[in-house]
Amino acid sequence: MGKKVLVSGGAGFIGSHIVDRLIKRSDMDRLVVVDNFWTGVRENLEHIDDPRLHFVEADIETFETDERFDEVIHLASPASPPWYMREPVRTIKANLMGALNCVDKLVPGGRISFASTSEVYGDPLITPQPESYRGQVDCTGPRSSYDESKRCTESLLFELKRTTGIDIRIVRLFNVYGPRTRPDDGRAVSNFLSQALTTGELTVYGGGEQSRSWGYVDDIVDALERYFWLDDIAYPGPLNVGNDREIPVIDIAKYIVELVPGARLKMCPPIPQDPTNRRPDLTLCRQTLPGWEAKVGYEEGIRRTLQWFAEKVMKGASTNAPTPVRLSDEVSEEEPRLAVGSN
Amino acid sequence: MGKKVLVSGGAGFIGSHIVDRLIKRSDMDRLVVVDNFWTGVRENLEHIDDPRLHFVEADIETFETDERFDEVIHLASPASPPWYMREPVRTIKANLMGALNCVDKLVPGGRISFASTSEVYGDPLITPQPESYRGQVDCTGPRSSYDESKRCTESLLFELKRTTGIDIRIVRLFNVYGPRTRPDDGRAVSNFLSQALTTGELTVYGGGEQSRSWGYVDDIVDALERYFWLDDIAYPGPLNVGNDREIPVIDIAKYIVELVPGARLKMCPPIPQDPTNRRPDLTLCRQTLPGWEAKVGYEEGIRRTLQWFAEKVMKGASTNAPTPVRLSDEVSEEEPRLAVGSN
Repeated sequence: MGKKVLVSGGAGFIGSHIVDRLIKRSDMDRLVVVDNFWTGVRENLEHIDDPRLHFVEADIETFETDERFDEVIHLASPASPPWYMREPVRTIKANLMGALNCVDKLVPGGRISFASTSEVYGDPLITPQPESYRGQVDCTGPRSSYDESKRCTESLLFELKRTTGIDIRIVRLFNVYGPRTRPDDGRAVSNFLSQALTTGELTVYGGGEQSRSWGYVDDIVDALERYFWLDDIAYPGPLNVGNDREIPVIDIAKYIVELVPGARLKMCPPIPQDPTNRRPDLTLCRQTLPGWEAKVGYEEGIRRTLQWFAEKVMKGASTNAPTPVRLSDEVSEEEPRLAVGSN
Repeated sequence: MGKKVLVSGGAGFIGSHIVDRLIKRSDMDRLVVVDNFWTGVRENLEHIDDPRLHFVEADIETFETDERFDEVIHLASPASPPWYMREPVRTIKANLMGALNCVDKLVPGGRISFASTSEVYGDPLITPQPESYRGQVDCTGPRSSYDESKRCTESLLFELKRTTGIDIRIVRLFNVYGPRTRPDDGRAVSNFLSQALTTGELTVYGGGEQSRSWGYVDDIVDALERYFWLDDIAYPGPLNVGNDREIPVIDIAKYIVELVPGARLKMCPPIPQDPTNRRPDLTLCRQTLPGWEAKVGYEEGIRRTLQWFAEKVMKGASTNAPTPVRLSDEVSEEEPRLAVGSN
């Protein structure tokens, strides 16, 4: 018997790339993907024609089945500020109650892998951030539904491991971008690319000196597949996964302006609680995944992503945004709480 | 029509003192107390004879009723390390899913008050801790189910306020002690008193230099009733409530040794991740509750608590500890994860 695998959020940006990798496994004979199309998109999986893949449209926190899985990969969550700030309760439910439900769906001895985030570090006071850094998150702030539900889900899984011995793998991802990001995602790279291809006006918040470590999705998913199922690793996490080349937001915007004729910058007021910096300490990642490196620099990654966006945006990408598609040029002064973020 | 009030955890230590205060209200005509007797104790409410009080034995996260309440006071949670470390998932459910369920039970415009904790500050790097301090909690550590579920519940309520306008009051409590603490509670004051009255051997961990700000329950509940319902306050929190006189654990132990003939100290190895210090910055509290002060020093508070413990312990207090009653003298080297804490 081959493995049974469950992926929550498998129609999402990172989720669909994970599904692409899972499909290549020869030791798996059933793959159930659960997604509610909140931020996931049906067409992200449409290219897959594999009888082992079964799709269920459901919220992961209430998904029910009698099946039990050898591996569960829990990715269901919005990851972009305007999305989670619109629906904070739903964000907390997806992450935390989703994780609880995922654990219930494991066979005894099964493994749950969870995508946590560099947002657990909040606006960090040290750089780069090692996994031992306890972070600086405002648990009452406008980003907290995401940051705190990721922190609390880490706690849930580590405490389940301590008390029941459950097998866990927890990664903290740093600013992943690339093809299959929603054009209306709201984070910097996708915003800038969407804007460059439509209005031409790239909105840069707060001077753009905020820096991030931009991880191209192929590099990140290379690490995830090794950590979640390919390599023989006992370390439960947390494991930073990202590109440790830290680049200010303004440099990304300027690079895109160079690439797209007619594109220009528009400087806007800062976003509340936008972290000033973020860079992974990858010491542990390099020990755990020997030979792995984030190989794709932002220049190459952005060119590839631009090509994908150009195809999608030009032909009108599908979207299920709950309010009119909110590219950042539409963010008004009256809605500062829904303004886009830099990450 | 008078107010309808719901209290979760109302048979617990702080909860039962809150119920005593609520019963004095003339503007309330129904008080529903929900408690599952996990750490709450039936006899904490037995002295109350009031037809407005209705008790329901239930978990707050699954409590169902068609009634809706003007005020909900959400206190359900273990607060002592050995209790929440034994059942971390249940701790997270009580706090976070409990809060979600409490919110569902409010009338439109109703108010939810929530007891958060100084544990949101973790092992703080600044002293005293103002509400703006973002804390230093290890979200993967053995105390995290409590710390992170309190943080995430704060997030849930603040984000509900931001997105729906719900009326919230959030306090962060610092090391409350006093009558009706469980003898098997596991925290420093109750441990020392139980030990002094039984084995005579007070177990002090890690040298006892860890300092805490010990808040006598009457003082703390004075502040809570003003903030939760008596005073006309718009501030949603978070509000530190405590006694800002910071005293090392060893001083508390020595004081009890002086009070109880035959009592003596036993020095033990440190507890993992026991915070080194904790002291509330009360600037905001004094502005919000003019005239309020924690009036009872630890000497007076401990004498009063000792008297209560002497009556209870000597006649054999009721307990529903899931493992044999774990006074700290029973903590063995083989079970360091269940060792008692200083707070």
